[in-house]
Amino acid sequence: MEASIQRKHFLDDLQVGQRFTSGTHRMDEAQILAFAGEFDPQGFHLDHEAAAASLFGGLAASGWHTAAITMKLLVGGGLPLAGGIIGAGGEISWPGPTRPDDVLRVVGEVVEIAPSRSKPDRGIVTMRCETRNQHDEVRQVLVAKLVVPRRPAQQEAAASDVLESV
Amino acid sequence: MEASIQRKHFLDDLQVGQRFTSGTHRMDEAQILAFAGEFDPQGFHLDHEAAAASLFGGLAASGWHTAAITMKLLVGGGLPLAGGIIGAGGEISWPGPTRPDDVLRVVGEVVEIAPSRSKPDRGIVTMRCETRNQHDEVRQVLVAKLVVPRRPAQQEAAASDVLESV
Repeated sequence: MEASIQRKHFLDDLQVGQRFTSGTHRMDEAQILAFAGEFDPQGFHLDHEAAAASLFGGLAASGWHTAAITMKLLVGGGLPLAGGIIGAGGEISWPGPTRPDDVLRVVGEVVEIAPSRSKPDRGIVTMRCETRNQHDEVRQVLVAKLVVPRRPAQQEAAASDVLESV
Repeated sequence: MEASIQRKHFLDDLQVGQRFTSGTHRMDEAQILAFAGEFDPQGFHLDHEAAAASLFGGLAASGWHTAAITMKLLVGGGLPLAGGIIGAGGEISWPGPTRPDDVLRVVGEVVEIAPSRSKPDRGIVTMRCETRNQHDEVRQVLVAKLVVPRRPAQQEAAASDVLESV
């Protein structure tokens, strides 16, 4: 069903196990240095020599930079949710650092869908988002809890019409 | 013991319940727009009108921006760890968004100290870091697992000397 790739998903459109793949972002050294200089000015993110002598064994992007690029990829079509991507929180880990010239993409999978009991117009969707590089190495795992709106009643009928006509 | 505020802490210097407070960062609208434009280009982070109509009810910084500023505050003296601040991962949540002109600071508390069994030169320290604004509202909670080196044997003796002379 190709239509589902293009349209924005309401909570009611999602299924556990459903997967999304983002576009890509090439993380070059200049970006790594700029982000680290502003937000995470530590030697292993800023200087080759210091990085070689560190736990990272070479220049490594800040984990928060990998997180920010992950968000950019999700917002840029990687996760087409109605209402946008609104995170309440989640768990994040970095199995290994992003390196200069890594080409990142995000593979997301729906883990849980929980309609809100108190707010009937929305729910919480738990997504496991793996940020991988061009070698398919996982550079970040984010298990995020997202606030996703439910489909308004009048739109439900319209969507069914579209699906029947496909 | 004022000396402990200035020097860098090894794993062996930390105690459960120990607290650290960072300096402050004023998050202005220009910073919010610049970060969102690059990493999280959604209406509620970029446009007052769109933000007013959204779940946020007004312009809100990206949660990843709050995370990045939190890291900046920790690196800038908020958490003086030997070896720098190296996160393996953690849990993050945003009880409410950072707003233009919020003045952020981070209050960190040591929650758990776990020397590594396989690597005798380091361990994992769990820190709960609350990022609060000038009204003491918590804008982010990060429970982070940090890799912290143990004090090398020869430095242990030297440090004892210093403490005895204080």
